[in-house]
Amino acid sequence: MRAPTMTQHTIIGLSAAAFLAAAALSPVATAGESEGRSWTLDDILHAPEVSELTLSANGRFALYAAEIADSEAKRTRTQIRIVDIGAGTQHDLSSASIAKSFKRIPGTEDWSALLDIGEGQQLYRIGANGGIQPLVANPEPVAVGKADLSVSMGGGAMPHSVGILGYDWSPDGKWLWYSRLKAKAGPPHIRFDEEVSTLANRKRSSIEAEIEVFLRAPDGTVAKVITRPTRDRMAMYAGGRVIWQGDEILFRIESPDGTLGSVFETRAWNRKRQTMRTLSNERNARTLTMLRGPRNGILTTGGTGTMLELAEMRPDGQRHIYGRFGFTISDSNYALSNDGHRAVVGTRSIENPRYGLLLVERSGVREITGAASLTKCDFDDRITQAVCVEEGMATPPKLVHIDLASGKIDPLLPVSARYDEIAPLDTRPRRWTNRDGYKVSGYVMYPRGYRPGSRYPAIVITHGFDADERFADPENQWNYPAQLFAERGYVVMLINDPSPSQSADLRAAYNAWSRGSGPPDPKTMQRLIWLESVHALEDAVNELAAEGLIDPQRVGIAGYSRGAQVVNVAITHSRAFHAASSGDGGFLEPSGYAGWPAGYNPVYGGPPFGEHFEQYLRFAPSLNAEKICAPVLQQVAAAASMQAELFEALRAANVPTQLTYYPGASPASDETHIFHIPSNRLLAMRENIAWFDYWLLGKRDADAPFPERIAAWDRMAKEGRPRCDTAKPPP
Amino acid sequence: MRAPTMTQHTIIGLSAAAFLAAAALSPVATAGESEGRSWTLDDILHAPEVSELTLSANGRFALYAAEIADSEAKRTRTQIRIVDIGAGTQHDLSSASIAKSFKRIPGTEDWSALLDIGEGQQLYRIGANGGIQPLVANPEPVAVGKADLSVSMGGGAMPHSVGILGYDWSPDGKWLWYSRLKAKAGPPHIRFDEEVSTLANRKRSSIEAEIEVFLRAPDGTVAKVITRPTRDRMAMYAGGRVIWQGDEILFRIESPDGTLGSVFETRAWNRKRQTMRTLSNERNARTLTMLRGPRNGILTTGGTGTMLELAEMRPDGQRHIYGRFGFTISDSNYALSNDGHRAVVGTRSIENPRYGLLLVERSGVREITGAASLTKCDFDDRITQAVCVEEGMATPPKLVHIDLASGKIDPLLPVSARYDEIAPLDTRPRRWTNRDGYKVSGYVMYPRGYRPGSRYPAIVITHGFDADERFADPENQWNYPAQLFAERGYVVMLINDPSPSQSADLRAAYNAWSRGSGPPDPKTMQRLIWLESVHALEDAVNELAAEGLIDPQRVGIAGYSRGAQVVNVAITHSRAFHAASSGDGGFLEPSGYAGWPAGYNPVYGGPPFGEHFEQYLRFAPSLNAEKICAPVLQQVAAAASMQAELFEALRAANVPTQLTYYPGASPASDETHIFHIPSNRLLAMRENIAWFDYWLLGKRDADAPFPERIAAWDRMAKEGRPRCDTAKPPP
Repeated sequence: MRAPTMTQHTIIGLSAAAFLAAAALSPVATAGESEGRSWTLDDILHAPEVSELTLSANGRFALYAAEIADSEAKRTRTQIRIVDIGAGTQHDLSSASIAKSFKRIPGTEDWSALLDIGEGQQLYRIGANGGIQPLVANPEPVAVGKADLSVSMGGGAMPHSVGILGYDWSPDGKWLWYSRLKAKAGPPHIRFDEEVSTLANRKRSSIEAEIEVFLRAPDGTVAKVITRPTRDRMAMYAGGRVIWQGDEILFRIESPDGTLGSVFETRAWNRKRQTMRTLSNERNARTLTMLRGPRNGILTTGGTGTMLELAEMRPDGQRHIYGRFGFTISDSNYALSNDGHRAVVGTRSIENPRYGLLLVERSGVREITGAASLTKCDFDDRITQAVCVEEGMATPPKLVHIDLASGKIDPLLPVSARYDEIAPLDTRPRRWTNRDGYKVSGYVMYPRGYRPGSRYPAIVITHGFDADERFADPENQWNYPAQLFAERGYVVMLINDPSPSQSADLRAAYNAWSRGSGPPDPKTMQRLIWLESVHALEDAVNELAAEGLIDPQRVGIAGYSRGAQVVNVAITHSRAFHAASSGDGGFLEPSGYAGWPAGYNPVYGGPPFGEHFEQYLRFAPSLNAEKICAPVLQQVAAAASMQAELFEALRAANVPTQLTYYPGASPASDETHIFHIPSNRLLAMRENIAWFDYWLLGKRDADAPFPERIAAWDRMAKEGRPRCDTAKPPP
Repeated sequence: MRAPTMTQHTIIGLSAAAFLAAAALSPVATAGESEGRSWTLDDILHAPEVSELTLSANGRFALYAAEIADSEAKRTRTQIRIVDIGAGTQHDLSSASIAKSFKRIPGTEDWSALLDIGEGQQLYRIGANGGIQPLVANPEPVAVGKADLSVSMGGGAMPHSVGILGYDWSPDGKWLWYSRLKAKAGPPHIRFDEEVSTLANRKRSSIEAEIEVFLRAPDGTVAKVITRPTRDRMAMYAGGRVIWQGDEILFRIESPDGTLGSVFETRAWNRKRQTMRTLSNERNARTLTMLRGPRNGILTTGGTGTMLELAEMRPDGQRHIYGRFGFTISDSNYALSNDGHRAVVGTRSIENPRYGLLLVERSGVREITGAASLTKCDFDDRITQAVCVEEGMATPPKLVHIDLASGKIDPLLPVSARYDEIAPLDTRPRRWTNRDGYKVSGYVMYPRGYRPGSRYPAIVITHGFDADERFADPENQWNYPAQLFAERGYVVMLINDPSPSQSADLRAAYNAWSRGSGPPDPKTMQRLIWLESVHALEDAVNELAAEGLIDPQRVGIAGYSRGAQVVNVAITHSRAFHAASSGDGGFLEPSGYAGWPAGYNPVYGGPPFGEHFEQYLRFAPSLNAEKICAPVLQQVAAAASMQAELFEALRAANVPTQLTYYPGASPASDETHIFHIPSNRLLAMRENIAWFDYWLLGKRDADAPFPERIAAWDRMAKEGRPRCDTAKPPP
């Protein structure tokens, strides 16, 4: 254990001494490796991400799933493992294409899970002895994801096939609620009007399917509850989220009505009478799940600022206030005890974005935080103990056991021992306040062998609010190899957008964006949601330059998706960045309007033709390409029109640029928004290193993945715009 | 034979008497059917189109292919038939998905053809006895057309699979030149820059392939000549167009260089030495084939006006002028005698767009025209006799035999006897001169039982230059059932655009459009290529209204592709049209720019953002939706962004509109630009009838294919724009 990690152990809930004692017991801790080795690209590529974790009923075992890049299989695969908590040992059960929805089967020591182990995603029983048996199988699974003849699931889903979509057990384990995906038969139908407009954006063939929901009784008979279209996001993505209440099972359906908000209904299925009734009907429901508290109400945090009010809204309309805290809450680590008297919710602290737990009882609350973030927790039925993953920016993920009564956290096992061999990089959480008073959180990763007094080149990585205490997380650093940049002598700044919880105006702007209409007016929206982020990044760069840490003439900026929006706005509004990498983005460009009018309307006032064109002219990056000095690399999985539009505009404005498209595993499928094909991710990381080395440092990377492109960079550097003279001269 | 057909027999080349005599010999002519029956939708759907026709070497037989809708097979299929010319009989040989490139095999009485009879498109030998034997087969045919995992061939190609792409025989029939399509192996590659931009417009997955060209020697050995990319349009679409010259085979390749024009090279392959040389290199070659004349030069027509100069450009640069004629020439009915002394070219007359033949000898030329158009002709090697299809607007296609020396045309057989049962509709060729002096040709189809003195509602159908003497041609009338409209009491006006051959300014505008840049300036382009067509249509309507034939308050307009451009401009610039059907178009809308910049640049000056936006604002139909009064139906196969853009704009402007998408036979494939799926075509024709009956006549068609849509029409009629008060009130 190295100092930077140890210094983080002063958080309430676990003393540094206790942690060190626990660490000494860890079976993989090896003496004398405190120096450790450097990061490699392979380390980043193979960083495991725990996606599921569940205790056994007796608390002696835990079942977990770790997603790890599999270069052989050309995709991410999931390792399923069983942990013997007492012995502190684990063994691999199986490897699956998909492994999700791990649950205990009530009344047994076994688990159930949705796995794809060759037959598409189906429901299996997993014994504590490691045996895997089918529980419910759909013999006709349906292809989903970004591939030909598949049901669309958005850009994030890698191509796979789904038989069983969701499930839940009754509290006694005797009834099984499940939903399955079924392809619609027959030839394609003739479409009219808006149903045609949506096709204008398709890139691949798709098929239609529907979702059938069933309830299996203790005697094995199966009743069909309802059939829903795949447009019902509740049925599609939350099929197992039901409430068992007497003879009724409560679930929610969404009736898309053409608005952004849709209409949500709560339905109740009576398992004895086999009848349905509608309990409530609400527009614009904001959450999929409600966090039930110990007073039978709903737990929420409210207010603005750095301390938020935690309250429970009771069914009688009364509001119980637990106090003010420096975190937000979510359902990611949520559980309620069997007797309903004790709840636990996940927290994310505002100052330093770290995940923890909050035990909520009628008598009060208790925060439990670890040496780093506590994620993927599971609890026993009485909420007395937990297993979690502990992970941080510089802390490789390990499993820990938590005694909730004492708050004691015991390390169990590392998820992958190889990361303990690496000498952690000095990574410090930091907050900045921009010139307009908006606060952002983030991290500064120091270059390996950092010497105070030297100035280093810097790379800013930005992606919404994902710069938090997680380990080498692709959702945050995408194909930007932060650790490798630090190994190669860059300061890496991982910086979040200003959190909307800090002020009413930011919250109003984000609400308008998700609602699809202002107020505020477009100009204010542009400022609050994009320009304040850019100001924060620019001010953070200036601050670190003023401290003497970074060289302000060699600063790059990188971000994907939401981050790409910020990158594209940053380079059109700021001269602080001298090279840019913009990943699979394009929102804000005019041609994107057709694909998401509700997202554009509040930002620009309307479509890009006619009266609103002035707003686009003012703010769309491609229409402001003349102002850009930084060379721009776009790495894309979608080949969307907006990306081509920005590329063409940069070309026309003589800005050095490259548009690189990473294809799917075959012509029948696409790479996903977060790359799932290891070879693509590796090449994209190497391409970013070569790009920034070339344009910021004037270096030709010997490991550049497409060396033949460097001639084009040389040409662009030579012919590039002379007025932008702040950039480093080419090598 | 009825009067309207007979009156057309006064054309030079065949007297009416001779034709009647010949007709009496026709085995299918039945006495007493002069009254005939009415047209049905099924008649239009099943109208045969002869796609291939070839004489046998001894002139005793002809082989032909007729494409006919096959409702069972859900597509168009081709009947292959042999005709015994002496006996005047025919019999079916086979049915094929694809049948093309029929040729005599020199030195034999057999033919060869590219057929898909279950193994993809391969090369077969067809004996005069009707036997079909494989000649060259590619065991790994490649999917092409608008379908998943296929090689793109543009919007027109229905999904099929290609083994052998093209071929030709040496004059002695001993050597065989052929090309085959080969899928490229390996995973998809990473793409850069412009290669990514082109993906932004894809709607389906595609695969990559290349074209391999081979020469088979008399001893059966095969030499590989060259490998070309599918981007080489010469290799892709004209693989069999070669010239055998001594030991060399001359062929052309295209090297796409990013410009519209490309670079074309003529290459020569020496079959003895197996070496290649480059003969010439030319930019912007305008034709795929050159029409060799009897003076070893190239035949061309030049000049402007209604009489054009026919000349032969000789290799020594000398120009021989044959005279001035009222037709243009093309390679569609071209042949050269074995001794090179006699050529025949296809003609299309300017005044009345009818196809004929022109025999060209050193001594002079001779025009041969029939009772209607002569199409798909084939000739013996000495150019003394021909077989052709004779067809016209009201003349069902029949095979005819022509003695070229005498010009005598003998009817052989009808292609489908059912069309002789129909009493022809009175269809009269007509020319109009618009207010600006531009001339257009076309036809007026009179309603069944037309009574002079009554006024009829009218439908204008427009599609480029395809309103010519062909029978119920889908390239012209698409899904607009002209004959059914006439049966139901409409006057149908089938009108061409002003031909560019008539004036230098029109020719310059069309040249600029195909070149991808002006001059003329955008405003002039818009006027010459679109507004002059609209003026011509409007003036034609006014003329027929002034004559008392049509009711100017009940005029509809319909057109697909190029015709859809004219329809969309017409309704934004004219109040002459009270309902519109715009088929699978969208060019001129801003969002189409990305897909075809070179097509947009001369029309608007540049892309739709920035300085050129004013031009779009002025002319793009969707940006002028506020000016539209006519209800607009769009029937589409592509679901392109431009079509959605116009739909949304019409909706926003409260113009009654419907966007109907006709899908492919399966989710893995699309309907084509000219519909190839019979059920789609039938529904689309019925939809057009219901649409015009509703908006022009205030009638609810009992046969409306989507009766549930009529409620939406009622709502739109009620809520439609009150200021547009010239439209018929809703029923």
